[in-house]
Amino acid sequence: MNLVAIIGEITPLEQSWIEKAQTRQDRLTKPPQSLGRLEEIACRLSAIQRTLRPSVDRKRIVIFAGDHGVTEEGVSPYPAEVTAQMVANFLNGGAAINALARTAGAELVIVDAGVKAPIPSIDISGKAVRFIQRPVRQGTRNFARGEALTREETLSALSLGYEMAMDASKAGVNLIGAGEMGIGNTTTASAITAALTQLPAASVTGRGTGADDEILLRKSQVVDQALRRHACRPDDALGILQAFGGLELAGMAGFYLGAAAARMAIVCDGFIASASAALAVRLCPASAGYFFAGHLSTEPGHRALLEIIQQEPLLNFDMRLGEGTGAALAMNIMDAAVRAFVEMATFEAAGVSDKQELAPELNR
Amino acid sequence: MNLVAIIGEITPLEQSWIEKAQTRQDRLTKPPQSLGRLEEIACRLSAIQRTLRPSVDRKRIVIFAGDHGVTEEGVSPYPAEVTAQMVANFLNGGAAINALARTAGAELVIVDAGVKAPIPSIDISGKAVRFIQRPVRQGTRNFARGEALTREETLSALSLGYEMAMDASKAGVNLIGAGEMGIGNTTTASAITAALTQLPAASVTGRGTGADDEILLRKSQVVDQALRRHACRPDDALGILQAFGGLELAGMAGFYLGAAAARMAIVCDGFIASASAALAVRLCPASAGYFFAGHLSTEPGHRALLEIIQQEPLLNFDMRLGEGTGAALAMNIMDAAVRAFVEMATFEAAGVSDKQELAPELNR
Repeated sequence: MNLVAIIGEITPLEQSWIEKAQTRQDRLTKPPQSLGRLEEIACRLSAIQRTLRPSVDRKRIVIFAGDHGVTEEGVSPYPAEVTAQMVANFLNGGAAINALARTAGAELVIVDAGVKAPIPSIDISGKAVRFIQRPVRQGTRNFARGEALTREETLSALSLGYEMAMDASKAGVNLIGAGEMGIGNTTTASAITAALTQLPAASVTGRGTGADDEILLRKSQVVDQALRRHACRPDDALGILQAFGGLELAGMAGFYLGAAAARMAIVCDGFIASASAALAVRLCPASAGYFFAGHLSTEPGHRALLEIIQQEPLLNFDMRLGEGTGAALAMNIMDAAVRAFVEMATFEAAGVSDKQELAPELNR
Repeated sequence: MNLVAIIGEITPLEQSWIEKAQTRQDRLTKPPQSLGRLEEIACRLSAIQRTLRPSVDRKRIVIFAGDHGVTEEGVSPYPAEVTAQMVANFLNGGAAINALARTAGAELVIVDAGVKAPIPSIDISGKAVRFIQRPVRQGTRNFARGEALTREETLSALSLGYEMAMDASKAGVNLIGAGEMGIGNTTTASAITAALTQLPAASVTGRGTGADDEILLRKSQVVDQALRRHACRPDDALGILQAFGGLELAGMAGFYLGAAAARMAIVCDGFIASASAALAVRLCPASAGYFFAGHLSTEPGHRALLEIIQQEPLLNFDMRLGEGTGAALAMNIMDAAVRAFVEMATFEAAGVSDKQELAPELNR
């Protein structure tokens, strides 16, 4: 995969499209700007799709799953086998993301980017889910002891994500979200966040799936020590991915870059998905305009990542589940924003008096 | 209508249902509490519907329209005729609420509770909207000069709203929202807010549809003087409605009380809908448990009203449109909350290891 070529395909959004869209917004039968952030969403989608009739009618969430060698350090209250078990749960339709993707009207694709334990065999014929088995390796190496991935493995996982974006684009998908499953991956995401932002480990390390005080302290120490061991430069996104992993994080980063290259809008999920988004934006700053931040996670490092991707979260529901659940939830907001923009009547067409024309006689 | 009897039908939610629902939440394949506010929503819906399989599959938004005599004082940048014109726009399907109700999968009912100007005749056959023409009178009287409504008119409008709730309940609706249209009604809602909370007029009066500094100052003065003229007691919700109106605000208050009596969940819209909700809660404190606050409006008085109805807003998108748009937008969040709760697999059923069972050996 030629990362430089992909990055070259991504162009910044044109402000002129945003302005054209805002001009149309102001003619619709509502007080100017009264739909607030919904108007901003529709305007940016107009710029992404280069049309005043944007659409997000074809949505897809791709969940990348992978394991983390760092779980050897006892950083999660759940055993690493849960990654494979939860992949089976996704395939059976029983996880939160299955319910939320159905609610959002989003297709669901599960990608094994590097799960360690064997994934139980599930018959998915007739089920609303696709399964792509392309593990780059069976989990990453323990980043507390050495590099999580080789350069080649890192690029393979990025490439896998990029392929998933091309597949979505070919299918006509116009709104994508990425989700992840990987026991231990909040530890990896905390290390990436600290490396990208140079913030202290303790300030970007949280309880993840529910670490108690003892696990939290250990997690923070593991991240702190690994940061010193690997000493990555904050602008070396590729080096950071290689140092800490994981395969699902690299997959998501490649997926995001591919989506931006194909001009698909991206709803970003929570802390871990945002770590991948921040890596993508560090690799290609022009990709930032393609992101919408679905929600604000309770993980303490999330805010710092959203600053890198330059997005304010749409929702704030104290969620911390991952899987793409926050992205799925925000997709309906995007739908609403687009439909109001495209389906509303203008003042002229509806025969509704605009305020400007009558303001003078009212101001008696 | 017998207001006392209706209020008597409304019972506080039972904490035991919320606890039973939370116990089920904790068995679902996700870390405990990781769906944050979505879990709270589903638990409360369980208590409202008295079941561990709640549903919000049948949604309805009822828009109450009415005019305000106080527009004579020049408190809005739009002419009063816009109320009737926007009702026509709703019937034609061209307003923001039409697009957002479609996105939410909600039925739309428009109620003329007291529009002043003639409503253009619209053929709605085959359109996804119902129209109920039951004006109590052609707009309220100017509350700057006297009482907006008589006691009888106030009760008639409350009764109209109550009937709309009974109609919804009979149809099997399980989630309702109220919207409103009425040029001048942010002025009325500000007066109601100040009367209910005893806050100064200036602190609860905002720009509404887009008042400039001159109109805003006049609006605030009109509210301030009217508060002194009418001198309502904050616990006299009926007297406050009678003093200030409006017919659509009374209609919404009656609708909410009827919804709570029929155990339907309510998503509250923005500032004006919340003024009606606060009146309903003042009339019947037990109704508070049936409300969910859809969003936080940019109107400065909204927060104080949400304190009365004891709800934190779900969304915060800088919206200030009314019509029920914030309620419609939040309905999909309610959907997602319920579907995750009802459709997810438990740890046992999915064969996923729960953290408790393996924590000791992990904490080596």
